[in-house]
Amino acid sequence: MPKKQIPPNRPVYPTPAALITSVDEDGTPNILTLGEVFNISIAEPVILGIAIRQSRHSHTLISQTREFVVNLPTAAIADKVWYCGSVSGRDVDKFAESGLTPLPASEVKAPLIAECPVNIECKVTGIQVVGDHDLFLGEGMVQHVDEEVFATGGRIDVEKLDGFAFVGGEFWTFGRRI
Amino acid sequence: MPKKQIPPNRPVYPTPAALITSVDEDGTPNILTLGEVFNISIAEPVILGIAIRQSRHSHTLISQTREFVVNLPTAAIADKVWYCGSVSGRDVDKFAESGLTPLPASEVKAPLIAECPVNIECKVTGIQVVGDHDLFLGEGMVQHVDEEVFATGGRIDVEKLDGFAFVGGEFWTFGRRI
Repeated sequence: MPKKQIPPNRPVYPTPAALITSVDEDGTPNILTLGEVFNISIAEPVILGIAIRQSRHSHTLISQTREFVVNLPTAAIADKVWYCGSVSGRDVDKFAESGLTPLPASEVKAPLIAECPVNIECKVTGIQVVGDHDLFLGEGMVQHVDEEVFATGGRIDVEKLDGFAFVGGEFWTFGRRI
Repeated sequence: MPKKQIPPNRPVYPTPAALITSVDEDGTPNILTLGEVFNISIAEPVILGIAIRQSRHSHTLISQTREFVVNLPTAAIADKVWYCGSVSGRDVDKFAESGLTPLPASEVKAPLIAECPVNIECKVTGIQVVGDHDLFLGEGMVQHVDEEVFATGGRIDVEKLDGFAFVGGEFWTFGRRI
């Protein structure tokens, strides 16, 4: 198969779409849409990574409070995910404008998003510059999962998640198990 | 929706399945199967991240040579991807045993995998311990893409990639555009 050389540009996919919640020092929450979250350390401890541009409002909030929540959205709220990625929390209250519902977390001040079936509370363990983004590492403290997405036996049923991925600038549903 | 609290365990998906190629100091190549690769810095420069356990043979090779190639597989070779993740390159020649075909890269000594429609050559810019894995950061030097996966206009046609994701320990095809 002949191959063509091109400059790489966000070359790897599919990656998990996510809504990242955080709060300012007064407790006012914000929502950041990301096209991916990284599982870096798998078990002991669980450490997730998120890459945020320095210009983003959530960069300021998470740098100050050193806490965030990763919320995995459903295809049913894809329009709200786009919306939260199209405006700045400096200008609008994204919870009020999107209609998404904040729920109290158990170990951090940032809220869970009720409409997201998976929520992972994280405490920041490090922030570093990596090229045009800053990489935030966060220890996963506790995961909340909607009771209705568990299959018999206690495993999460992926099909019940109604999740989606970020692929080449677009949102794509999960496909089928190979 | 009532939520249940569970310990987080590789909680975020779908993530991109990948074959990582590297060479030892004599030029002998190896293949590492990963369940995800991270787009961390998007454009200037492009920096990808991969998380590798210290015990893996490829950890030694990439630490020595500071080069690797990210190869995105197709669903058609999913069995070879599983195989490459089930044996160690210390014991077997994974190219010979899997039947995958090495191709010369342009800027690194590690080979491209011919059967993978996307290959990204990377040079390591940093290695750090993150919990139970080490995070390798690699600058994306050049991307090779099979000519037949381009759509009219020069954009990659995601459906032609026949790619797949890693989801909760299983391989899943891409679904449909939302």
